[in-house]
Amino acid sequence: MKLKVYADRMSQPSRAVIIFCKVNGIDFEEIRVDLSKRQQLSPEFKEINPLQKVPAIVDGRFKLFESHAILIYLACSFRGVADHWYPADVSRKAKIHSVLDWHHSNLRQGAVGLILNSVLAPVFGLPLDPQAAAESEKLVSLSLSKIESVSLKGNGRFLLGGFQPSIADLSLVCEILQLELLDEKDRSRILGPHKKVQKWIEDTRNATRPHFDEAHDILYKAKAKFQLQRSVAANDERESSIKKVLPSKM
Amino acid sequence: MKLKVYADRMSQPSRAVIIFCKVNGIDFEEIRVDLSKRQQLSPEFKEINPLQKVPAIVDGRFKLFESHAILIYLACSFRGVADHWYPADVSRKAKIHSVLDWHHSNLRQGAVGLILNSVLAPVFGLPLDPQAAAESEKLVSLSLSKIESVSLKGNGRFLLGGFQPSIADLSLVCEILQLELLDEKDRSRILGPHKKVQKWIEDTRNATRPHFDEAHDILYKAKAKFQLQRSVAANDERESSIKKVLPSKM
Repeated sequence: MKLKVYADRMSQPSRAVIIFCKVNGIDFEEIRVDLSKRQQLSPEFKEINPLQKVPAIVDGRFKLFESHAILIYLACSFRGVADHWYPADVSRKAKIHSVLDWHHSNLRQGAVGLILNSVLAPVFGLPLDPQAAAESEKLVSLSLSKIESVSLKGNGRFLLGGFQPSIADLSLVCEILQLELLDEKDRSRILGPHKKVQKWIEDTRNATRPHFDEAHDILYKAKAKFQLQRSVAANDERESSIKKVLPSKM
Repeated sequence: MKLKVYADRMSQPSRAVIIFCKVNGIDFEEIRVDLSKRQQLSPEFKEINPLQKVPAIVDGRFKLFESHAILIYLACSFRGVADHWYPADVSRKAKIHSVLDWHHSNLRQGAVGLILNSVLAPVFGLPLDPQAAAESEKLVSLSLSKIESVSLKGNGRFLLGGFQPSIADLSLVCEILQLELLDEKDRSRILGPHKKVQKWIEDTRNATRPHFDEAHDILYKAKAKFQLQRSVAANDERESSIKKVLPSKM
């Protein structure tokens, strides 16, 4: 029975799992769980993942959730996955676990908070929260500094000095790509100072082409939509200001 | 060269690593990094863990941080660690990864926020924040409900239906023990509704005795100290109220 991947490509860990499968020639069926329609809360999906989050996989009778755990399981279970993705060597594997663990409470926590509070909240019927967004931005910036000074400090092109990507590169780069949803000036302010991070993103993209771009297509479309909404809102605000000024001059 | 474990037993992941080593007869040297004295920020410790957090280990020339990664590394690297701690079977291992990954953004995030904002903040020169504590308490309670209804739903005594503990049991139970620092009525309100969780804590404690109690000794001493501070503060407040009332009656 073919592997089933339950995912929404708007979710960064979902994209990491999809790209990993495609790059490694793992045959799978992608089943969309539309987060904007809250499909993750449906009774059907609760049978797949009782914690009601994407991504989740079903491999025969085996069900699994949490993207890092899924990536490790796929790397260990499917033939043809090159060693660099999740090395057999205990020490190298340990370093990958360490980066992935760190990710949860740092880059991921910051990026999720930033995007939710500055872009996505209205999609889920919540108000934007600039103060929470600012707090999250601090954590994202600190995380990017740490990646640059600690994990990318070697001569390699990838995390931990590697010359080929691991599941940690894929997971973290997909997280950072979510910043595409920000207003361009905000994204530039955050990513601009981190040249090594920018190069690493490009290296990871190149190492996983064309699947990387294909999986992120939905994100770029959403980026364009949010950008248009911002332009319209800014225009409306400008017109409203002009209307407020004009009567007083007439 | 003997394994070095850099830890502060007031930190729950530090305790998990220490208990794991002791239970499994791993010979190690414990080096205290006193968080209340900010020793994790010293240049010497930055050489061990550039991210300046405990626990961290040094095994020969190999350095590692992040407690989950450390527990996995120790289970794979040291002879004599029984399979149930971190099974060789890919599917069982994947389920342990899944619980550990979930831990970061749920139980751990909630427990750290709750204890910091309701007990420990003054130790680090910060103000207590009852609103942030209340938000964190919600996440802790939700996490305990999920553990009870999802991870402990089988017939086994441990997570995922096991009859012997894994590194996931040890990590999560050490996290929950941190709630000992709360005022007793707050701790009872949070843990009271979760009978399966309470039994699981006792089962994990029993399976790792006497090392579990020994590693938590410092926590119980801190609990008594904070409880005394609360009693003194409450007493001062009562006396101050009486003084305010008395003059008006004189």
